[in-house]
Amino acid sequence: STGSDGICKGGARETLFVDGAKLQEQIDELAGFSDTPAPTVTRILYTPNDVAARRYVKTLMSEAGLSVREDAIGNIFGRWEGSDPSLPAVGSGSHTDAIPYAGKYDGVLGVLGAIEAIRALQRVNFQPKRAIEAVMFTSEEPTRFGFGCLGSRAMAKSGEIFDILRASKDANNVSFVEAARSAGYGDVEEKLESSGLGHEVYSAFVELHIEQGPLLEKEGIPIGVVTAIAAPASLKVGFKGDGGHAGALLMPDRNDAGLAGAELALAVEEHVLASGSVDTVGTTGVLEIHPGAVNSVPREARLEIDVRDIDEARRDKVVAGIRASAESIAKKRNVRITNFEVVNQDPPAKSGEKIVEAAKQAAESLGLEYKLMISRAYHDSLFMARITPMGMIFVPCFKGYSHRPDEFASVEDMTKGVQVLALTLSQLSSA
Amino acid sequence: STGSDGICKGGARETLFVDGAKLQEQIDELAGFSDTPAPTVTRILYTPNDVAARRYVKTLMSEAGLSVREDAIGNIFGRWEGSDPSLPAVGSGSHTDAIPYAGKYDGVLGVLGAIEAIRALQRVNFQPKRAIEAVMFTSEEPTRFGFGCLGSRAMAKSGEIFDILRASKDANNVSFVEAARSAGYGDVEEKLESSGLGHEVYSAFVELHIEQGPLLEKEGIPIGVVTAIAAPASLKVGFKGDGGHAGALLMPDRNDAGLAGAELALAVEEHVLASGSVDTVGTTGVLEIHPGAVNSVPREARLEIDVRDIDEARRDKVVAGIRASAESIAKKRNVRITNFEVVNQDPPAKSGEKIVEAAKQAAESLGLEYKLMISRAYHDSLFMARITPMGMIFVPCFKGYSHRPDEFASVEDMTKGVQVLALTLSQLSSA
Ligand SMILES: [Mn+2]
Ligand SMILES: [Mn+2]
Ligand SMILES: [Mn+2]
Ligand SMILES: [Mn+2]
Repeated sequence: STGSDGICKGGARETLFVDGAKLQEQIDELAGFSDTPAPTVTRILYTPNDVAARRYVKTLMSEAGLSVREDAIGNIFGRWEGSDPSLPAVGSGSHTDAIPYAGKYDGVLGVLGAIEAIRALQRVNFQPKRAIEAVMFTSEEPTRFGFGCLGSRAMAKSGEIFDILRASKDANNVSFVEAARSAGYGDVEEKLESSGLGHEVYSAFVELHIEQGPLLEKEGIPIGVVTAIAAPASLKVGFKGDGGHAGALLMPDRNDAGLAGAELALAVEEHVLASGSVDTVGTTGVLEIHPGAVNSVPREARLEIDVRDIDEARRDKVVAGIRASAESIAKKRNVRITNFEVVNQDPPAKSGEKIVEAAKQAAESLGLEYKLMISRAYHDSLFMARITPMGMIFVPCFKGYSHRPDEFASVEDMTKGVQVLALTLSQLSSA
Repeated sequence: STGSDGICKGGARETLFVDGAKLQEQIDELAGFSDTPAPTVTRILYTPNDVAARRYVKTLMSEAGLSVREDAIGNIFGRWEGSDPSLPAVGSGSHTDAIPYAGKYDGVLGVLGAIEAIRALQRVNFQPKRAIEAVMFTSEEPTRFGFGCLGSRAMAKSGEIFDILRASKDANNVSFVEAARSAGYGDVEEKLESSGLGHEVYSAFVELHIEQGPLLEKEGIPIGVVTAIAAPASLKVGFKGDGGHAGALLMPDRNDAGLAGAELALAVEEHVLASGSVDTVGTTGVLEIHPGAVNSVPREARLEIDVRDIDEARRDKVVAGIRASAESIAKKRNVRITNFEVVNQDPPAKSGEKIVEAAKQAAESLGLEYKLMISRAYHDSLFMARITPMGMIFVPCFKGYSHRPDEFASVEDMTKGVQVLALTLSQLSSA
């Protein structure tokens, strides 16, 4: 007899074997594709190391017997066909790109973990009814083109994403289309829209990820079941003054764009703290001044600001406060605002009930304690939520560190995460 | 009969011909050796464009019949021999390196102007008693190795300059010695100390320069005679926090090094304004944050700060204030100070009386109004003052702009400046 997850009762589930050692080996190998030395990982969209990582993921998918396809912008799918191929599939995946000087688990666990979850189900001869697809999304991180989740936004046909991608250029003035072509996606321009998916493609989507926060580790709980993803917004702001010689230009005659930038960075912090909620966060992650010489009064400042909250209205109030501060600082310092761009201002997403339920049951059936939680980081699942019910499974990570080289999750915790994912997928694919 | 400047009275002096059009042509040609597009000029020590500029200067010197020599670090001298070669020479020159995105007059006028002044004296068959040397100093700007006036510091054997040069590395970890070698200075390491000069080499040094301030233009005065050069100091400060994910790391758990940097930049401004004197200036010209990704809490900040004053004690008080602020900010924000380096903290320099007198007389004899003034920018003359009496001649520049692409001095003003320089040199070489 089979249980609701399609796995034989009284044995198979308990002995579901996840090869944690192999998974760790693969994570380590993938970390080698980096633009910066170990232990840092830097893997930027469409660069040679990103292409190498993609090749590696496709190889693992093929070795797992999955049929591999790529869409026009490089989202990668490894499909384990179901007994009823006409049914919407169950998807699971994440990203393998990494911001500069980051670590090796963010995103990677969700891609390699999905493949290993499929392998674990194959080992117990599980036969999915709905197809199960392992997914690697193109550029979850905003590093190269200034906004994140390119792949999942395209899948969800979010906003003006295709027009935005066609118009996007990186800091070196390389267009998205040129960059994609250089990575082997030759028909990206003509076929861009074909990356968009309808609501009939997936019946559910599940993303396994390190928590990127300290709660699970602190409380000693191995599994987080995500009930909602916080609402992210990001801004680009530019100030311009007149610059001049640091010795000769007297203080009353200056309009120092660098100091305007410094003030705005501090204003971001003030507005966030003024929200009064620990759930509001704001960061000036980029602050560049130009020309950047010790003896030159800064003529330009360029900021990139990230604001998130689980409460969309509260987040929008912070964004409005930042705009007001930019204006008052510009006025006070007699600099011009050359740019105030809301790059994205997305709503939060709630997890699908059936996915939360499946994940909870999976953890329970494995005897693993779990915690219902909010994801403060955003993920491709935020956009997948627009075309299918989604859910996320978190595993603890060292001190909550992420986006740093000492980002770490133990093999034991990752193994438990993949076990929960496997059972969740088996249940969703059987429903 | 000859006047005190050695030029025939009653004719030659009034008709002293300075070829301003040619000078402008040369300035324009030199501006073409730039790492960034016109109208910006970027010419960094020992790069191919710096080497090209050096070649150009040496060619002009040779064409003027000067005997050209270079020292171990690339200070360039073009000597017009005097009738008594045993006497200390009169030097005149400046620099041709340019900070990123700068203009084409800063420094360049003083190098090409010195050569043209010699040519003007040659045209009237002036015969110097003391040799007159046109000088191009190596790296007045601090761009590459973080401190300026490398060439003149070496000539003056200032502080631990030779040890510092041997130990210096640029931002790409290229050592000063390697960089100099790549520019053709093969024996730089062995012969470094030979760049140092004694007090017997020059009897006087004069530098022609654009004002880099607005006063001459505002008051409609064509010539500034500099009586003192302000005291410069520069600092490097580094902060380090723990970084983390911009979405997941809650505000109370952060120690954002970028915000510490922003606060210190604003504190620099506060300390400077608190001096109460318009003569105190302070600039955070470099503020870099790391890793510099929109979704990453800054882990490191690196600042370069410039403080100057004509009053050394008042300047030192500002430097002390910045140090205290760095410490209190680090404590408050729980970040570490990884670096607090006083790169240089030089005393001001007074011009030599005989040079001020010669320049005043030169202006008067040409019927040009002049103004006694302070140089707030520092120059190689600040260090030449340690081995010889020095002076500077300023010409007006557009709105006082400098270190920007719209830096500008008119041919008419530059021509007058070179005329005053020529007469000053003739007088000093005859004394
Ligand atoms: Mn990430
Ligand atoms: Mn991620
Ligand atoms: Mn300069
Ligand atoms: Mn200069």
